[in-house]
Order: sequence, then structure tokens, then C-alpha cells
Amino acid sequence: MQLLKDRILKDGKVFPGNVLKVDCFLNHQIDPKLLKEIGKEFYRRFKDEGITKILTIEASGIGIACFTAEAFEVPVLFAKKNQTKNIASDVYTSKVESYTHSRIYDIIVSKEFLNKNDKVLIIDDFLAQGSALNGLIELVKNSGAEIAGAGIVIEKAFQNGGKIIRSQGVRVESLARIESMTDDGKLVFL
Amino acid sequence: MQLLKDRILKDGKVFPGNVLKVDCFLNHQIDPKLLKEIGKEFYRRFKDEGITKILTIEASGIGIACFTAEAFEVPVLFAKKNQTKNIASDVYTSKVESYTHSRIYDIIVSKEFLNKNDKVLIIDDFLAQGSALNGLIELVKNSGAEIAGAGIVIEKAFQNGGKIIRSQGVRVESLARIESMTDDGKLVFL
Repeated sequence: MQLLKDRILKDGKVFPGNVLKVDCFLNHQIDPKLLKEIGKEFYRRFKDEGITKILTIEASGIGIACFTAEAFEVPVLFAKKNQTKNIASDVYTSKVESYTHSRIYDIIVSKEFLNKNDKVLIIDDFLAQGSALNGLIELVKNSGAEIAGAGIVIEKAFQNGGKIIRSQGVRVESLARIESMTDDGKLVFL
Repeated sequence: MQLLKDRILKDGKVFPGNVLKVDCFLNHQIDPKLLKEIGKEFYRRFKDEGITKILTIEASGIGIACFTAEAFEVPVLFAKKNQTKNIASDVYTSKVESYTHSRIYDIIVSKEFLNKNDKVLIIDDFLAQGSALNGLIELVKNSGAEIAGAGIVIEKAFQNGGKIIRSQGVRVESLARIESMTDDGKLVFL
């Protein structure tokens, strides 16, 4: 998606250790116009799949998932990272390892909102090692729902997540795939 | 906002201890059509205020804030609950007490995205004791930006938060104000 790639090159910041900061438009500050176009692009790619639900994970996936859901005219469901007393005990759960926070946490969705009649499009902002996406895939499998695929905004294609998940037969559509980043701030798309 | 009140009466669930669950359309599963209307309603109420930025707090405020930002054609900024190594050290910070999780946590926003030239509309899903809203107000004050007001989806008007914050001179617009809830599931709007 050229609009997104241009924006990454214009406003993204590359830091040593393969860190790409896009927090001025994607995951801290959010540009709603760009996210609306991203939602439309996911719709264009998955519109014939009979999607009934968009699934994402808090927090930075939510905005993207909301605009995607608007394009599909279906609800969003976001997996929560901690069980609160305001969520029913009747939940699907799986585990996600966060490399950013260096810890493993549980993610949950209420059983009430996902079942075998659903066809799910998973949405997230980044795909690198694939831990969050794997956790979301496991949640959907536990529910008996069908996975239509995953829509990712930025894939670090030099890491293994995308390859492993595609090899499991899950369709992964990434709008910007990064081939390499260098410590002096250079970024190359696939 | 009648559409919202009707939805709360239809799909909200009241539990003992003044717990209102609206997780089937607002803060776990999200209905993008309803949120879009909510965003338009906040725009209608604050459109003459010269808003430059929408500020909310992760996670359940993000979807609402995104659709509100779309109506205003300005960026969203969401306060994060934990400092991650992907956020610059240059942040505004304040504290929020979570009654749901029974703990106090830091919230942060990057200084890069909020400054004295901004006029901010704060958005959140619930207002009860007002702790989250107070934390967000403090962040904005620290930045030197101006607060245009706060747009709240559901206010538990029988709790003190709204009264305290309005008494500080902050304009608070709540789309549904609940006067009372009973342990047997009854809910009355103001």
C-alpha cells in the first residue's frame, strides 16, 4: 500500500536493534484518515471471504480494527491482556510473549462473542516474531470459528513470524513489508 | 443521546455493586456503527471549540476516540498505561487509580504530540469516580495545552467524578447519564 509506505518513509523513525517507531501516526498518536484508508484496503483484499467479525488485541490494534470493521460493517472484538472483574469468567484464553515488555501474558476474549458460526479477520499493527498473531489464532481455533486470514499494517519480513504463520496455511496480508533496517536509520521494503 | 440510551437498555447488563456491563457493543466487542454516531455527536457538541487533538486512554477509549477524531479531522493521542522501551523518555506522566483492577498506575503521553498550541478534547467510555479523567486532565495541564472539555459515553452520575470535575470548570458532556442502578438489574437515566 503505497500511501502507507510513503508515510513510513516520511514519519517513521528507525533505531538500532530493528526498532521502527511509527508512534506519530499509528500506535500512540493516530491519524484517522490514514487508518480509514488502511481499513478500506483490508476490505478490498478480504471482502469476498464472508467475514463476520474483526479480532484484534489491545491496545494499538484497536483503532485499525475499528476502521476495518466499519468497512466490513461487522463488529470488532479486542482481546484483553488481563482478566478484569468486569469480564465474564467464561472466556477463551491463550498466551502471548511480548518482546517489547520482556514478559508473557494471558490474552482473553469472552466466549459470548466468538463461536463456530464466525469467520474472523485478525488485525494487528505489527508482525515480527508472530507471538501476538499466534495467540489470536489460537483463540479463534479454541472458539471453533473459521480464520479468514490476518491483516497486518507493518510486517518485519526479516523476522520469522510471517513465514511460520503462512506455513500453517493462514493467509497473511501485510500492507507494508520491510526487508531490512539498518542501525543508521535506513529502511528497505520488500 | 437516545440511540445510545436505547442500546444500553437493550444490551447493557446491570450487576450488583453498580457494575454496568456494556462489553457487547462498547468496550470488548465494539459496534463501529454506534461508535461512528457517538463520534458525530461529540463533534456536534464541541465543533466550535477549535479542537486540534483528541486525547484518550488505552484501551477501551481508543475506538470511541478514533471515530470522534474522524469527525473532527484531527489526530487521536492515547495515553499508555505502562512505559515501554518503544516510547521516548520525553513524556508527560500522571497517575490513575483503577477501581476495576484495584491498583494505581502511571499513564504517559509523549511530549512530542502535545503542546501549548493544542486545544484538546478528552474522550473516555466511562466516568464514575473520575480518576482516569483527572489523570488525563493533569497530563494536558502539564503540556500547557488548553482543555476544551471531556466527552464521556456513559456517566455514573450517582458517583462523584462528574461533579468534582465540573466544579473545576471543565466542561463535561456525557451522552448517557445514569441516575441509579439497582442490584436486581434496573437502570434509570437522569
